[in-house]
Amino acid sequence: MKLYYSRNSRAVRVAWLLEEMGLEYEIQKFELGERAMRDPEYLAVHPMGRVPALEDRGITLFESGAILQYLLARYSNGHFAPPINSRDFPDYLQWFHYAEGMIMPPMNTLVVETILLPPERRTEINVKRSTKLLNQMLTAVDQHMAGREYLTSQFTAADIMTGHAVIMAGELGADLSDKPNLPSYIERLRNRPALKVAWSL
Amino acid sequence: MKLYYSRNSRAVRVAWLLEEMGLEYEIQKFELGERAMRDPEYLAVHPMGRVPALEDRGITLFESGAILQYLLARYSNGHFAPPINSRDFPDYLQWFHYAEGMIMPPMNTLVVETILLPPERRTEINVKRSTKLLNQMLTAVDQHMAGREYLTSQFTAADIMTGHAVIMAGELGADLSDKPNLPSYIERLRNRPALKVAWSL
Repeated sequence: MKLYYSRNSRAVRVAWLLEEMGLEYEIQKFELGERAMRDPEYLAVHPMGRVPALEDRGITLFESGAILQYLLARYSNGHFAPPINSRDFPDYLQWFHYAEGMIMPPMNTLVVETILLPPERRTEINVKRSTKLLNQMLTAVDQHMAGREYLTSQFTAADIMTGHAVIMAGELGADLSDKPNLPSYIERLRNRPALKVAWSL
Repeated sequence: MKLYYSRNSRAVRVAWLLEEMGLEYEIQKFELGERAMRDPEYLAVHPMGRVPALEDRGITLFESGAILQYLLARYSNGHFAPPINSRDFPDYLQWFHYAEGMIMPPMNTLVVETILLPPERRTEINVKRSTKLLNQMLTAVDQHMAGREYLTSQFTAADIMTGHAVIMAGELGADLSDKPNLPSYIERLRNRPALKVAWSL
């Protein structure tokens, strides 16, 4: 297996699961935004030149959520996802999809406005709107996490998806001061050896 | 089962799959943005007061992608998703997640800027950036669809997720004139009786 990876990107999610599962993989690293990501060679792997992408036995796929579900379905032997008939299963799916459905849209805007664009091209109203929306999305996670260690009764790939989004939101300066359950959740995730490896490949 | 639904929302995806599967369901309709979506009663179903949400035998979940995967896992008998070991499976997952990962972020911005905000609060640069990004995301779908009827060798829930996003992009005025494969794909999807019902409940 070969993972196309950048630090500070959704590729960390894939590396995290690969490490949790103890799978062997090669890695091709990019600096986020570097020109090589637009080379025809890489555009044949990912048509938008983004990370992550995964190659495995002649197939290539992208989208972090798709890659995690692919790895779980083909290699996990039932770990990191609850059984279909369990009580946890619907919650697991909801929080798995919550990352891209709810948290990442305002995060994307904040990254563009506060990191990628030069100051003179920033739009204050976008920062304000996205900050408010992100806060609402994180509040819902915080409320769900009251009295819990993970999003469902055990650590799953939903914690990789939404947990990673929550960690990135914290890194980006989201206000966690009124969210009593998120700092300890972030710490619990960051203490996992698999994430420590995946974070800084 | 009970579906919380609005026209012109991602709830159409859930109704579409329910109709394809021939499942019975109750429906509670909202006009998009109506005040009742913020009532405490509905916020107990969906903490952000959005649609879709699904209730089924004492469980409640939201996120259209999660609901589709829930329905497929518990009720589909293997229809509408390829087998895990098939060649189609990774492509299926990729295009399932592509809807929210790639198409909907610029769509969300375009809906806010061109429909929800009054003209004096619109930001031209957002419209321009999102239009460009959406065009890139649709181009990748168009290129994949060359010579194909559906995203994988048969109609699946990936066509519901990304197909619905493509249809909505067309409704919002995205430029399809340089995308030879998308108009016929949209027509093929819109001719499915299940979508006809789901579109206008």
